[in-house]
Amino acid sequence: MSLLIVCPGRDPGTWIRELKREDSSVEIERFDEDHKKEEVEFILSWNHPRGIFQDYPNLKVIASMGAGVDHIISDPDIPENIKITKVIDDSLEGDMSNFVLMQCLNYLRNTYRFYRNQQKHTWDKRMYRRPENTIVGILGMGILGQVVGEKLFNNGFKVQGWSASEKDLENIKTYAGDSNLNQFLKNSAILICLLPLTSETENFLNREVFQKLPKGAYLINVARGGHLNEDDLIEFLDNEHLAGAALDVFKTEPLPEDHVFWEHSKIHITSHVASITHPESIVPQILENYQRMKTGKKLKHTIDRDKGY
Amino acid sequence: MSLLIVCPGRDPGTWIRELKREDSSVEIERFDEDHKKEEVEFILSWNHPRGIFQDYPNLKVIASMGAGVDHIISDPDIPENIKITKVIDDSLEGDMSNFVLMQCLNYLRNTYRFYRNQQKHTWDKRMYRRPENTIVGILGMGILGQVVGEKLFNNGFKVQGWSASEKDLENIKTYAGDSNLNQFLKNSAILICLLPLTSETENFLNREVFQKLPKGAYLINVARGGHLNEDDLIEFLDNEHLAGAALDVFKTEPLPEDHVFWEHSKIHITSHVASITHPESIVPQILENYQRMKTGKKLKHTIDRDKGY
Repeated sequence: MSLLIVCPGRDPGTWIRELKREDSSVEIERFDEDHKKEEVEFILSWNHPRGIFQDYPNLKVIASMGAGVDHIISDPDIPENIKITKVIDDSLEGDMSNFVLMQCLNYLRNTYRFYRNQQKHTWDKRMYRRPENTIVGILGMGILGQVVGEKLFNNGFKVQGWSASEKDLENIKTYAGDSNLNQFLKNSAILICLLPLTSETENFLNREVFQKLPKGAYLINVARGGHLNEDDLIEFLDNEHLAGAALDVFKTEPLPEDHVFWEHSKIHITSHVASITHPESIVPQILENYQRMKTGKKLKHTIDRDKGY
Repeated sequence: MSLLIVCPGRDPGTWIRELKREDSSVEIERFDEDHKKEEVEFILSWNHPRGIFQDYPNLKVIASMGAGVDHIISDPDIPENIKITKVIDDSLEGDMSNFVLMQCLNYLRNTYRFYRNQQKHTWDKRMYRRPENTIVGILGMGILGQVVGEKLFNNGFKVQGWSASEKDLENIKTYAGDSNLNQFLKNSAILICLLPLTSETENFLNREVFQKLPKGAYLINVARGGHLNEDDLIEFLDNEHLAGAALDVFKTEPLPEDHVFWEHSKIHITSHVASITHPESIVPQILENYQRMKTGKKLKHTIDRDKGY
C-alpha cells in the first residue's frame, strides 16, 4: 500500500524528504515516475491532471496540499466514495493574516502612491487614515477568515464578516446569507475575499458587489482568481468607485505577461504569496490521516463535497 | 498676555481654530502678523526662524507642536530660564507603531520587489520571512520606542531595545549604554531608529553601526534625518551589507528633487508621514500647560535641556 504525490509543476522532492523524515516506514510514490496504481490508497495532491483519480482502483483518500480543495473537486470524475481532506495550518493562518494586515495598512498609509511619487522625485505629504476609523469586511468566515479578522481587530480595525452560515464571534460583527449581504457591503471600506471557491462563489466579486461598496472602497483578494470578474473590477476602478485592489490570486497563474492588470496603477499585484504552504508544517497532519485511513479511523479535516469546502 | 504661534511653512489657521474651540478666552497671536512682543508669554512653535525667542522679554514657555524638540533646542540663543515642552500623544504613538509595523511587514514580504516586478510584468514567487523568526532592534526606548516595541511584539516579532539609560520591560529585551551597543546591533535583522536628535545622536546611523548589523539587515528611520549619515548608508546598501532602508525623515525636507535617494532601488521614501500631528489631539495639553503657566503650577512634559529630550 502506498502514498502517491501528484503536484505537476512543483518539486515533490521536499515533500518526500519531509514525509520520510517524520515516518521512514511510509511507502511513497511519485506521479511523474513509474508506480503500481493498484497499490495507491492515498494521494497527496495539488493541481492534478484532470481525470487521473479514476485510474487508481484502491484509492480511498485525496489530501490537498493546502487549505483550498477547489483544484480537487473541480474534477468531475472523482468517485463518490473517495474522501477529500484539506489542511488546517496555524502558520498558514498566521502568514495569511500578516499579509492581509500589511495590505490594509498599505492602503491606509498610501504606500503605493509613495512608491510612485518616489519614481517621480515627488514629495507629497499626504494625510493617512487610521484603523480605528476603518471598517474592514471579510467575505468568508471559516477558520482563516476568523483568524484574519481577529488579527485586524487586535490592530485597531473595526471588523465585520459575512458567510453562508451564521457565526457568533466576540469581536467581529457577522452577517449570514444573501439577505444580509447588502448591509454588510455598504459599510465595508476594505473588502477582503477569503471565500472558498465553489460554483456558488465563482465570480462573486463582480459589479453587483462592487456597486454596493462605499465609494472609495479597496479590494483585497487572497482567495482564488476564480472569485473575481476581471472586467467588472477594471470598470469600477476606472469609474473611481473603487480606490484600488491588492490581488494575490488570478484566474490564470502565473499571470500572463500581456494581462491588463500589470499596467493598471490601482492594481497591486503579488504572485500568490499571501500564504505559502511549508511541507514541514503540513506533513504531520497528512501522516496522521494516512495512519487513520489504514486503521479505519475517522479522518480529520474532511470536506463536504456538496458544499465544496 | 498672549499665546503666539510660530510655524513658518505651515498654516497656523487650523491650530488657531482648534485652540479657540477649546478655550475661546485665550488671546492668540500669529508670528506672521503684527503682534505685541512684550505681551507674549507662551509660544507654540515648529521650526521657528533662529534667534527670534530673544525678542520676547516676557517669554516663559516654548511648546513644541510635536514629540521632537530638536528644532527648538538646536537654537543656541534661547535664554536659560525658559521652559521647553514636548507633546505626548497617544494617537501619535499609535500612528507611529502602525507605520513601523507596516514597514517591517513590507520588508519581510518583499512588497517593494513585487511593485518593481509588476512594472516589468514579472511573476516571481518568492518565499517570505516570518515575524517569529525576525529580531527587530529599536534604538531609543522612550515612550514612543516602547509603544512601537509592544506593537511589534504583539504581532509576533522578537523585539529588543537600546537606550542611553537602563529600562526594565516585560516583553522587550533591553540594552543600555555604549558598552552594550555592539551586542544589541549584531542581532538586529531590522533596525528602527526612534532616538531623540541631540548632539550625542547626530549621525548615529553611520558605518560604525551598519557594519555591526548582521548581513542583510534592513533600516527604518522614523526619527530625524539628522540621525543618518547619508553617504555611509549608500555605501552599505551598494556593498550589499544592508538589504534596504525605509526612510521617512531627511536632513533637508522636502527631500530635494535631485537627491540621490530618490533613484536608489533599495531606499523606500515616504514624506515624513509616520505620524502627523493632528491639532485636535494636541491642543488640550497645550492649553493645560498654558493655564499651568498662568497659575504658576508645574508644567507637564517639560524636557531636560542638557539631555536634549
